[in-house]
Amino acid sequence: MRNIRLIIEYDGTNYFGWQRQPQGDTIQAVLETALERITGEKITVIGSGRTDSGVHALAQVANFKTKSKMTPLQFQKALNSILPKDIVIKEASDVDPDFHSQLSAKSKVYIYVILNRSYPSALERLRAWSIQDPLDLTRMEEAARMVIGEHDFRGFALSKLGVKTTVRRVLSAELRTKPDGRIEFEIEATGFLKGMVRLIVGTLVQVGKGKITPEDFREILESGERRNFAIAAPAMGLFLKEVKY
Amino acid sequence: MRNIRLIIEYDGTNYFGWQRQPQGDTIQAVLETALERITGEKITVIGSGRTDSGVHALAQVANFKTKSKMTPLQFQKALNSILPKDIVIKEASDVDPDFHSQLSAKSKVYIYVILNRSYPSALERLRAWSIQDPLDLTRMEEAARMVIGEHDFRGFALSKLGVKTTVRRVLSAELRTKPDGRIEFEIEATGFLKGMVRLIVGTLVQVGKGKITPEDFREILESGERRNFAIAAPAMGLFLKEVKY
Repeated sequence: MRNIRLIIEYDGTNYFGWQRQPQGDTIQAVLETALERITGEKITVIGSGRTDSGVHALAQVANFKTKSKMTPLQFQKALNSILPKDIVIKEASDVDPDFHSQLSAKSKVYIYVILNRSYPSALERLRAWSIQDPLDLTRMEEAARMVIGEHDFRGFALSKLGVKTTVRRVLSAELRTKPDGRIEFEIEATGFLKGMVRLIVGTLVQVGKGKITPEDFREILESGERRNFAIAAPAMGLFLKEVKY
Repeated sequence: MRNIRLIIEYDGTNYFGWQRQPQGDTIQAVLETALERITGEKITVIGSGRTDSGVHALAQVANFKTKSKMTPLQFQKALNSILPKDIVIKEASDVDPDFHSQLSAKSKVYIYVILNRSYPSALERLRAWSIQDPLDLTRMEEAARMVIGEHDFRGFALSKLGVKTTVRRVLSAELRTKPDGRIEFEIEATGFLKGMVRLIVGTLVQVGKGKITPEDFREILESGERRNFAIAAPAMGLFLKEVKY
């Protein structure tokens, strides 16, 4: 059996996230259906991890086993011709039989986009979180730096279901300001808990608005208690940027 | 009567362009309906010019007359609270009574976005034209420079209806290459014919694909005859960037 790796860009707006769900379309289910049409085989697509409903991917990684004789380029072209236009295969390649998108992943990079200005955005309304209140970037940066390193992130998890440990190692976390009130938060970690980036960003915004202090942020991180402080940022601002192996 | 100027960002995907049409929603009609709800007056909104169905605006300019006592900021907030999320008021201000969005305009700047790479884009599918064939940028630039200056652009017009002259003056035209196969064509002119930017870009792409030469491009410009060469680029890559007064 060949092992094919896919790099996938998707617009999460119209999906119930990555993972197959009974209640509606997911990226995984749409990909599996397309691959079954192409190969005539029953195919399971393994993703590097789940993304929540409405979250986007610039480069999700997935792999599947097949007996097909198609070249990787033929797989890419065939998939792109039948997939809905909000899911695109950027690359397909043959990989080592023991490559596993989820288990082989060393780290993942997410990016969260905020637009901080006095009006929302028409063109990026499904690609960013518009915040009209002024944000104190200095305080947000102070809090953002606290998540770097190994911590128990249970205070920043929407669910701990099926997770052995809530300790995760954050390799980098950076707030970048861009023109026109654009703020990008980029975070790389060896693993993420469910909703972790959205909870970190939502809580950083609470700091930026002055509703809590950087010390309150540290308190959530150290105590593992959300205490009504930690708020999840909406899904549409979040992008899975890269999976590293 | 006060004269209020609006600067408007919109996602043209779901509209039949700027101008009021019997067959469906237009930006102008939606704005007028919202202003009538807010002021109780019958209001006509004058735009700097039409944008076609599916074309976006980063900063369309419009003005309207009103007896309302609301401040410009109140107008902005009230409009943004009731407009659909794909139309946003970036700025509202009181202007001189004789300011006229269309007649006072000195020039307009459009930007057209092409993504030239081996796969389409999921996230920008409604904000750019994806072209998978390789493009010869040098030849495209050579042709692009030809439109600068005063020319009879009737070979680059989708319609000449209601137009006194097809002569227009292009102040600048530039192709810019960005990372990840992104190509931006920016053009400023004192006025544009219907479909002019899309026809110029579509024909430049014909040059880039090697289907016609820069000399064929010049031929269209000089003869005013399209000769099946000139092809209109799709609307979703086009943005009205700025109107200058």
